[in-house]
Amino acid sequence: MNQPKRHNLPVNADRIAEDIEALAGITEPDHPWTRRAFSPLFLKGRTYIEARMKAAGLTTRIDAAGNLIGRRAGAKSGLGTILVGSHSDTVPDGGRFDGIAGTIAALEVARSLKDRDIELDHDLEIVDFLAEEVSIFGVSCIGSRGMTGQIPEAWLSRVSGDRTLSQGIAEVGGDPSVLLAQKRPDLAGFLELHIEQGPVLEAENKDIGIVTAIAGITRIEITVEGRADHAGTTPMDRRADALVAASQLVLDIRSRAAEQAKTPGHFAATVGEFRIEPNAANVVPSKVVLLIDGRAEIRSDMEEFLAWIDAAVQRIAEAYGVTIKSPVRVSDNFPTPGAPVLLETLERACDTVGAKHRRMASGAGHDTAWIAKVAPAAMIFVPCKEGRSHCAEEWAENDDIAMGAAVLFEAVRDMDRNLKQNRE
Amino acid sequence: MNQPKRHNLPVNADRIAEDIEALAGITEPDHPWTRRAFSPLFLKGRTYIEARMKAAGLTTRIDAAGNLIGRRAGAKSGLGTILVGSHSDTVPDGGRFDGIAGTIAALEVARSLKDRDIELDHDLEIVDFLAEEVSIFGVSCIGSRGMTGQIPEAWLSRVSGDRTLSQGIAEVGGDPSVLLAQKRPDLAGFLELHIEQGPVLEAENKDIGIVTAIAGITRIEITVEGRADHAGTTPMDRRADALVAASQLVLDIRSRAAEQAKTPGHFAATVGEFRIEPNAANVVPSKVVLLIDGRAEIRSDMEEFLAWIDAAVQRIAEAYGVTIKSPVRVSDNFPTPGAPVLLETLERACDTVGAKHRRMASGAGHDTAWIAKVAPAAMIFVPCKEGRSHCAEEWAENDDIAMGAAVLFEAVRDMDRNLKQNRE
Repeated sequence: MNQPKRHNLPVNADRIAEDIEALAGITEPDHPWTRRAFSPLFLKGRTYIEARMKAAGLTTRIDAAGNLIGRRAGAKSGLGTILVGSHSDTVPDGGRFDGIAGTIAALEVARSLKDRDIELDHDLEIVDFLAEEVSIFGVSCIGSRGMTGQIPEAWLSRVSGDRTLSQGIAEVGGDPSVLLAQKRPDLAGFLELHIEQGPVLEAENKDIGIVTAIAGITRIEITVEGRADHAGTTPMDRRADALVAASQLVLDIRSRAAEQAKTPGHFAATVGEFRIEPNAANVVPSKVVLLIDGRAEIRSDMEEFLAWIDAAVQRIAEAYGVTIKSPVRVSDNFPTPGAPVLLETLERACDTVGAKHRRMASGAGHDTAWIAKVAPAAMIFVPCKEGRSHCAEEWAENDDIAMGAAVLFEAVRDMDRNLKQNRE
Repeated sequence: MNQPKRHNLPVNADRIAEDIEALAGITEPDHPWTRRAFSPLFLKGRTYIEARMKAAGLTTRIDAAGNLIGRRAGAKSGLGTILVGSHSDTVPDGGRFDGIAGTIAALEVARSLKDRDIELDHDLEIVDFLAEEVSIFGVSCIGSRGMTGQIPEAWLSRVSGDRTLSQGIAEVGGDPSVLLAQKRPDLAGFLELHIEQGPVLEAENKDIGIVTAIAGITRIEITVEGRADHAGTTPMDRRADALVAASQLVLDIRSRAAEQAKTPGHFAATVGEFRIEPNAANVVPSKVVLLIDGRAEIRSDMEEFLAWIDAAVQRIAEAYGVTIKSPVRVSDNFPTPGAPVLLETLERACDTVGAKHRRMASGAGHDTAWIAKVAPAAMIFVPCKEGRSHCAEEWAENDDIAMGAAVLFEAVRDMDRNLKQNRE
């Protein structure tokens, strides 16, 4: 980083820095930077954002799904709404910039339009989505799913402490009674800015990543069953050691994923959860349960990986004398491509403000993936330090965020000129 | 198993079966076969054993370390005591034969001597050691250590529930006030029968294993430190995945141990404890802590393994871009060889009763290892089904235990004839 400051951007970098710093300061003191959805701190953050929306001349409301929205009416009716935003909740112990960078950058677009007395034909809405991160209710993207009628009904009765999700949504100002019927037929297009959460832009000295697709996420649970033998007395060649077999699987998954990552299209696979039984010093491990997190920009890559896994577990079970049940697909979401028309819009915007850009996939999930089900949607990444995210060290340079806000500003103006209405 | 019954043994197999069955029945009903040291069930088991000792004409007492002892005076004074026995406590959910097979076989030796009006020159004591298994106080072999002055003073204040170990020993009838000064200068020799807890005798259709040595146990803790990155966004070639590196270590340990196991002398190494951090589906594992349990009959084998481990962690840390601190030797006990004179005695006894025997090491620890510090000591194994132990399925054929008791009977008579006194 440490580039010289960019001048002549159509946004105010200092105003962005001030807001992000103020919001970051609204954190659990012993766990920076924590402002989890549904907590009093989260509502305190929202109070700050709402005040800033009002100061920018926006009309604020909380929609049925608990999203905070600031609205600026357009000059022409019936063209639909351009929506821009991200989220202000955080994971525990992380979230200095994820996702307030995107919420504040969106707000800055509205402020800059106001500063310059620019009137759009479309209505413009700045959104702070509710609970993008996995929340205390164990689910994520509540606001973006909720805005677009994609919350499974059963979720509303999920419980955390003494509240249901339904009550949690009501407490932040949403309306669970009409939530399941939500739909936004008026959305003409959606844009989101987010930190990359990966090392690519920094390493390549790029300002902006234009997200071609949000990778599909597939989670696969595998149970390896061996035999609990006495670690002292059982000869090495008479064991069915579940940990040894599972270790081979971890290494093979890593090799396979590294190979698939070399072909076009983002691909990654990680064993993130791994526990052994009985986990006793003097007993040969009898069982390992592990969870694979697979991400693919191109669906056929994931299909290939899933077929490979099925064959791999058979091969390893045989080689190590253990039993491995059929892998269980715990969840399986398809990739979400960015709307092609908006990718072009964003490229033009980058060129207009002088941002060095590249196309890239998002390995992480985002609210954009849910909005994309009902409207043209796309997102941009800004660099973050060493790719670190979801940890206290997460850092993004304010100049990079300001550059991203400028790209959003230009893109919104471009969309206003060129987007056809997306009404049904 | 399923051999035809052996006839003409100098012991009564039915009496052995009756006692083992009666003791096995003294179990937590929902957790067969559980009779943990210091529990009311344990004391109930002891009441049974003491009654059977008395019926065999033995004079019973509880020594300072809480061991139950049945004594039969010898014809000559000053020759010292031949001690035979094992333990009656169990692990949770296991212990159908481990170690009551050895306690009852020892008792049967005394009974058979009585039946045949055989008087020994040496005093004979049958012992039921206190708490051979890891007890509720977190330590093992309390009775055999205690009988020989090998209990660390600090152990006495270990707490479980509302009791100290000192109080626990007093409750079973021991005398903690004189325990630390215990010593048995009168022990002329010690023998123990135990189920093998491994598959070798069964697989080779042998009746008796003559234990050349109780393997030393070395526990080594290794901490692998990588970097917690986002599992979706971090490219495969930019990771420092602690689980991948630890998996390589597990496989290498397995290969190395299998190689060392092929050379003379029992050797085994097992990764039995293994936990990862943060153990979250979407985070690249940042840390793995694992514990190696190494067993070696020959000390130099363990020294070689320890040197190999030091080199292996350096090699793996470099190859996988992680940090591995110097392995920590959590505990390190040397092997305990059986007394050569007793190994020969036991071989002669096997030949006398027609038992097919082989020499073998014990991978597990036993009371014998502690008695061996102060007196000639040795042990024999009898086969157990599929090598299973410390589980509900643990099984040994009564005929095999009876054969073992017969070997003890002949060995004790041999010792009585040939052992020189072991006084200081």
